[in-house]
Amino acid sequence: MLHYEDFIPGRQFQTESHTVTEAEIIAFARQFDPQPFHTDPAAATQSLFGGLAASGWHTSSLTMGLLSRSELAHVANGMIGMQVDKMRWPRPTRPGDTLTAYATVISSKVSASQPGFGVVKLHWETRNQQDEIAVHMETMMWVQRRGDTPPR
Amino acid sequence: MLHYEDFIPGRQFQTESHTVTEAEIIAFARQFDPQPFHTDPAAATQSLFGGLAASGWHTSSLTMGLLSRSELAHVANGMIGMQVDKMRWPRPTRPGDTLTAYATVISSKVSASQPGFGVVKLHWETRNQQDEIAVHMETMMWVQRRGDTPPR
Repeated sequence: MLHYEDFIPGRQFQTESHTVTEAEIIAFARQFDPQPFHTDPAAATQSLFGGLAASGWHTSSLTMGLLSRSELAHVANGMIGMQVDKMRWPRPTRPGDTLTAYATVISSKVSASQPGFGVVKLHWETRNQQDEIAVHMETMMWVQRRGDTPPR
Repeated sequence: MLHYEDFIPGRQFQTESHTVTEAEIIAFARQFDPQPFHTDPAAATQSLFGGLAASGWHTSSLTMGLLSRSELAHVANGMIGMQVDKMRWPRPTRPGDTLTAYATVISSKVSASQPGFGVVKLHWETRNQQDEIAVHMETMMWVQRRGDTPPR
């Protein structure tokens, strides 16, 4: 089990990889972002993307999927996100791209109102097979402290 | 068609509504956030959520889905997100919740490097049937200026 105390600044978690298919890109977009550059390979060539690209929300959700199946699956109370900042998608995710996600601890702070918990700030980054960044963001996660830690 | 010039600070866009089912919550979570409080109604009762709750990434993706089917479907070059900040989920989305999204223009700025485009900053907010906020965030969108606008 991972507790608040295990999130030491600099510690990095790496995930398995996932290769995204055209069918997955289109299925996600039809439900959550039905714009031609995400749903129609022919129409997408005429868009600013120059070809079919995954919705940014798809790339971000895939990142969550990868991280929630990594060592971070063992966070004591689950991976509970409090806030996301500075989320950007420097490179569109294309059919056939293989994504790997990384989460690096930036800082942490015990909760003032609930001293049995703390807030861990992480940098999330997902890279494709060419080591280009598909998405990056800063997240704040709500994490239980170890039971044997005396309250401050 | 909506261009940069149409995004006047204070202008608000409202979407249709969508009622989220338990099956949708579980299907999304199995793919993108397979934690028991998102996939297993019985196990969820023992979690910090006290019952089945949608993944925050699901609520955010539903928000994109609602907005991309609203008047914002008519943004000239499509809804292209550049950055997301301050994304928070004050209330979990539960099975049966009916969500409606709102996007309000905060500010806008012509691009220095590509004067045919501008960046529009929006506040996105999604509320449930009890007018509780399910998610809110600040987004920056890349929007084409009108063709007849002389370059500055």
